[in-house]
Amino acid sequence: MPKPGPLSLNTVTVKERWGLAECIEGCARHGIPGISPWRDVLAAMGVQKAARRIRDAGLTVTGLCRGGMFTAPDAAGRRRAIDDNRRAIAEAFELGAACLVMVCGGLPPGSKDLPGAREMVRDGLHEILAEARAAGVTLALEPLHPMTCADRSVLSTLAQALDLCDQLGAGTGVALDVYHVWWDPDLERQMARAQGRIAAFHACDWLVPTTDTVFDRGMMGDGVIDIPRIRAIAEAAGYKGFVEVEILSKRWWQENPDDVLEVMKLRHTTAC
Amino acid sequence: MPKPGPLSLNTVTVKERWGLAECIEGCARHGIPGISPWRDVLAAMGVQKAARRIRDAGLTVTGLCRGGMFTAPDAAGRRRAIDDNRRAIAEAFELGAACLVMVCGGLPPGSKDLPGAREMVRDGLHEILAEARAAGVTLALEPLHPMTCADRSVLSTLAQALDLCDQLGAGTGVALDVYHVWWDPDLERQMARAQGRIAAFHACDWLVPTTDTVFDRGMMGDGVIDIPRIRAIAEAAGYKGFVEVEILSKRWWQENPDDVLEVMKLRHTTAC
Repeated sequence: MPKPGPLSLNTVTVKERWGLAECIEGCARHGIPGISPWRDVLAAMGVQKAARRIRDAGLTVTGLCRGGMFTAPDAAGRRRAIDDNRRAIAEAFELGAACLVMVCGGLPPGSKDLPGAREMVRDGLHEILAEARAAGVTLALEPLHPMTCADRSVLSTLAQALDLCDQLGAGTGVALDVYHVWWDPDLERQMARAQGRIAAFHACDWLVPTTDTVFDRGMMGDGVIDIPRIRAIAEAAGYKGFVEVEILSKRWWQENPDDVLEVMKLRHTTAC
Repeated sequence: MPKPGPLSLNTVTVKERWGLAECIEGCARHGIPGISPWRDVLAAMGVQKAARRIRDAGLTVTGLCRGGMFTAPDAAGRRRAIDDNRRAIAEAFELGAACLVMVCGGLPPGSKDLPGAREMVRDGLHEILAEARAAGVTLALEPLHPMTCADRSVLSTLAQALDLCDQLGAGTGVALDVYHVWWDPDLERQMARAQGRIAAFHACDWLVPTTDTVFDRGMMGDGVIDIPRIRAIAEAAGYKGFVEVEILSKRWWQENPDDVLEVMKLRHTTAC
């Protein structure tokens, strides 16, 4: 089996201890060639300064996290989301990011209208598409695990994401996180369908037991996901990019970030 | 919209305080016409005695929970699972249960081979099918929420369950629990495909936030699932049976079971 693509650090993985400056320096120090910032640490540094520092460190920006969150109880809320997505596109352009990762939003507070929320997502994506295309920023639709459907993402499966890509056309793709899709009985078929449209490949692991629906992701190798199998399927579908490590974990957030990066590098070679 | 089908109590809903005798008496006292026992409370009473008491109370047995758990690290473990399923079929027959609910099992301990685990499920079902048919016991394949894929059920979607039903043929159907399927973007299409094969309809609710991946289910109406919408789709697919309430919840287990049944009855009319 071929070696995994190069490593990228998603900044949320060390968010409790490191800001963007430390992440950039850490990647350089550890020989990690890719970085994917979240917008909060980006804003804290300032986008232009961040773009320059990342460039100076020789890092590839494998994605910007995140756009999306289109669902809102009223038109004003949905409008604010569109405006925020426009800013995110501009930031992704400034960074030269490989894609803008789209976490599309859950049910609006107080709502049980899941089909309606899914329409809001579709409408929001249509609204920002021209701007993303003009900026050359790929919108990477990320299906999130169904357990996040109520509060984070009504975009729940790769099939659904690809249906949206089919509707939207050029300028869209999918962000594939093994954590969110590993369980899917339809995964192989949909990955084949994704041909050429996988814009990002995110890695972490599913722990047994999982004690929190959001903040208990595992380091690659500590859980039950057969990551090499999913990577092989992604590569068969044309993916040739980075392996971006994105671990939201109360446990790992407590560790020394330099240690986290060391473990990441090891597991990148043994568990991905 | 037509009224929901009659109410059934799944005994796990009050498992901390009531054994099967109290459940039977409670259903009779509250005018709840259906019951669905778990096998542990059934064994505690004895199957023949339970069958007689349930019959004497005039209750319909809407299901027996549960068969399945086919996945095991070795052949001996899988053989024990088959033997146990044979006993479950005999018990379901003795009770005159409308179906035997199949919770198919997660990854075997130490395994990351999800396709392999899914083969074990298929093989196990094939193995017991003739016996189930001979007994006239419908095997109700229950897709469980993808968050249970590692440790409870590699059967994750309605599509996957129906694919198995297609392979297995007569004597199989699906158990549809709104908690497990509400998020599925493919739900309407698959429910239409399920035509005539929905053997059970289970109700509870998805709470926001959900604090435990197994034991934090909500009472109907306390969460975000549009239960009437899903029931309407099920009825359009030919389902005419009971609404069985199955709530695994540390919170509700602490309450007085008579109060739980009262709330169930109210929510059956207002939130189902």
